[in-house]
Amino acid sequence: MSEKVYCAEIISVGTELLLGHVANTDSKDISYMLSEIGINVRYHTVVGDNSERLRQCVEIAKTRSDIIITTGGLGPTCDDLTKRTLADAFGIELKMNEHEKAILYEYVNTRGFTSELAENHMNQALLPEKCTVFHNDWGTAPGCAFDKDGKIVIMVPGPPKECRAMFRACALPYLRALSDDYIVSHTINLLGIAESRVDRIFRDEMNSMTNPSLAPYAHEADCFLKVTAKASSREAAEEMIKPVMDHCCEILAGKVYGIDTNSVEEALFSVLKESGKTVAFAEGCTGGDAARRLTDLPGASAVFKGGIVVYDNAFLENALSVPGKLTDTCETISPETAKAMAKQVRKIFSSDFGVGIFGIAGPDGNEILDIGTLYIGLSCDEGEFSIKLDAGKRHTRSYVRCIAGNYAFDMVRRYIQGLPLLSE
Amino acid sequence: MSEKVYCAEIISVGTELLLGHVANTDSKDISYMLSEIGINVRYHTVVGDNSERLRQCVEIAKTRSDIIITTGGLGPTCDDLTKRTLADAFGIELKMNEHEKAILYEYVNTRGFTSELAENHMNQALLPEKCTVFHNDWGTAPGCAFDKDGKIVIMVPGPPKECRAMFRACALPYLRALSDDYIVSHTINLLGIAESRVDRIFRDEMNSMTNPSLAPYAHEADCFLKVTAKASSREAAEEMIKPVMDHCCEILAGKVYGIDTNSVEEALFSVLKESGKTVAFAEGCTGGDAARRLTDLPGASAVFKGGIVVYDNAFLENALSVPGKLTDTCETISPETAKAMAKQVRKIFSSDFGVGIFGIAGPDGNEILDIGTLYIGLSCDEGEFSIKLDAGKRHTRSYVRCIAGNYAFDMVRRYIQGLPLLSE
Repeated sequence: MSEKVYCAEIISVGTELLLGHVANTDSKDISYMLSEIGINVRYHTVVGDNSERLRQCVEIAKTRSDIIITTGGLGPTCDDLTKRTLADAFGIELKMNEHEKAILYEYVNTRGFTSELAENHMNQALLPEKCTVFHNDWGTAPGCAFDKDGKIVIMVPGPPKECRAMFRACALPYLRALSDDYIVSHTINLLGIAESRVDRIFRDEMNSMTNPSLAPYAHEADCFLKVTAKASSREAAEEMIKPVMDHCCEILAGKVYGIDTNSVEEALFSVLKESGKTVAFAEGCTGGDAARRLTDLPGASAVFKGGIVVYDNAFLENALSVPGKLTDTCETISPETAKAMAKQVRKIFSSDFGVGIFGIAGPDGNEILDIGTLYIGLSCDEGEFSIKLDAGKRHTRSYVRCIAGNYAFDMVRRYIQGLPLLSE
Repeated sequence: MSEKVYCAEIISVGTELLLGHVANTDSKDISYMLSEIGINVRYHTVVGDNSERLRQCVEIAKTRSDIIITTGGLGPTCDDLTKRTLADAFGIELKMNEHEKAILYEYVNTRGFTSELAENHMNQALLPEKCTVFHNDWGTAPGCAFDKDGKIVIMVPGPPKECRAMFRACALPYLRALSDDYIVSHTINLLGIAESRVDRIFRDEMNSMTNPSLAPYAHEADCFLKVTAKASSREAAEEMIKPVMDHCCEILAGKVYGIDTNSVEEALFSVLKESGKTVAFAEGCTGGDAARRLTDLPGASAVFKGGIVVYDNAFLENALSVPGKLTDTCETISPETAKAMAKQVRKIFSSDFGVGIFGIAGPDGNEILDIGTLYIGLSCDEGEFSIKLDAGKRHTRSYVRCIAGNYAFDMVRRYIQGLPLLSE
């Protein structure tokens, strides 16, 4: 079976998705995980809580996909919608799973549910006969998988946290077992270079290589290059990847901020933790977003001392010691302001590094400067430094804020690692 | 045509969606806008940049939907994928639109593109014959709409900003003209009550009413109730909605934080602006997220003076005057800490209100308190006040942070409006 390339389709069941109140993150998360094991996703479908329409979607999926994955419609309020419809479509009976029922019984019993609610809850243990059961450690509705008529069917719950956790813990190993091959991927995380530029640099190589393969992807306001190899063992795949990673890292040198990391703040977090250093932020246009991003990482208190958000020139002058001649004019947005902010915030929080972020996030510019003009200051034992960025006029306020945070995080990482402060 | 209920399907074209790097926000945004004008969305489909597969998706959509909306596949790098496939599927020719071509010519000419790139750009003006053209004020690729074989086809670009803006400005008016009816909706924004509880309160009314109709929706860490009416004029629809809104607001009284607003911070922003008051935040567990949310709103500088993020007990004691006997123990997480933070941050930034947020966002609790235990302090001319929240143990770090921000914003709003500080 190892040579077959499987095509998957994800069917998300949920009227709330069709009403536009939430984005379909389940399909995104599952697609990403499937790409890690080399399964191609061909279609996403969203359908409401309607058995007849779901049935038709499943019939369509059977004609065009090898693997059919459903999310949603498993909980106690769904009348077994997804399980019953999929089981029917494949001519399988639902059967009470006594083990899952016992667990649900205990859950129900400790909560004093009405008998109707209790029964709905217990019905979550009704599962397709002979399926592989995915126990739900993150909620109540179990998921499952079965294999019939040459198709593989996988059902996981809809709530994003449960969907993601169960898919990774249960469905991925189930699917991985379909193939004798190991697929290994690594990413090279890049800042200061557009995905389209990375694409142009490596286009010839991408076209000529299939295993390992190379592919660039856009991320928030950064991008990454993914190297993937398939082999009969994990070690063999790693060995195939290594020279390609080295080659790409060499070409992209000044732009690489991390390997297999999730974000610029995560890269900074690791470097700070390793070096035992701490940081503090003084934020203008980012308005707390830099502090928020760093403190989103569990354990941030080991590296983050605190932050100040400044939206008032009097405060800049009094508390952050930015000279009055700057705050009185449009020249507030200057390297001097960013450096003064960095210096003061470092002093206030007694941190090893202080960072000042000041600029125009939009939607309005001022008389002198365009939207997207940003200065970042860095203060440390050796003194104060600054960089200037032009984030571009056409971006949204939140995108400009994201770029400002990315470069602020990266400036500190670069300083600690002895690199030039701005990617060359 | 006014009695017909149209069913729509949204087909998003883009391999990047199938790779799991971005969520399909286009379908979410369009679904939300369609719900505003009473068009039911039955399906979302995502397909890669593949003409044959897109064609099959369109054929399926023709059998089950009245309105087919595509997003993506219109730009200069797409080889006219979406336009050509849809035109073929409906037996229509593509034709160069001279007006759009002239605009693109000017764009291309000021940029010194290579001749190949220039031609790709100009080809964006190739559009289905006799279609209604949607000029793109937010990017380069025009969108369009046509009506053939009883089906309505709408094509908009894929980049979320362009998609959202063009759909609202061009596609919505086009679709609205299909019906003689006006559909008007208003939302009642609620904090401190779960969507499931709102559902139970109004279930009987929801089942018996069709016009106006009532429906509750979950939001970030709050929820809302939507009241929708259809009538022959906007005024008539408004008149039908009013008594229902009044009735619902009366029942939900203490939980209503706004009408037709987007978020708790937006409600606070309006109230602060109206009263000419300013606020400053001292944040512990929210780590800058409250400041970030308020400053995400354009014009925030009129009401927001600044913020402090505290991740260090020494700082709490020295700069925020939290007594040492508190910071030395687990009792740091207490009403006294939140109030001291509120008082000091108000003083530091000379704002009318100071808010202190302190608690445990997780993933780890401490020996005494559970994850989700939060205190919010408020300082103003009249003194200091505090509320305690239990955000629950099962939530993620970012959800707990969101709840903390919501209640902090709402506490200030309630104080200004003379309401009890916590929803009863």
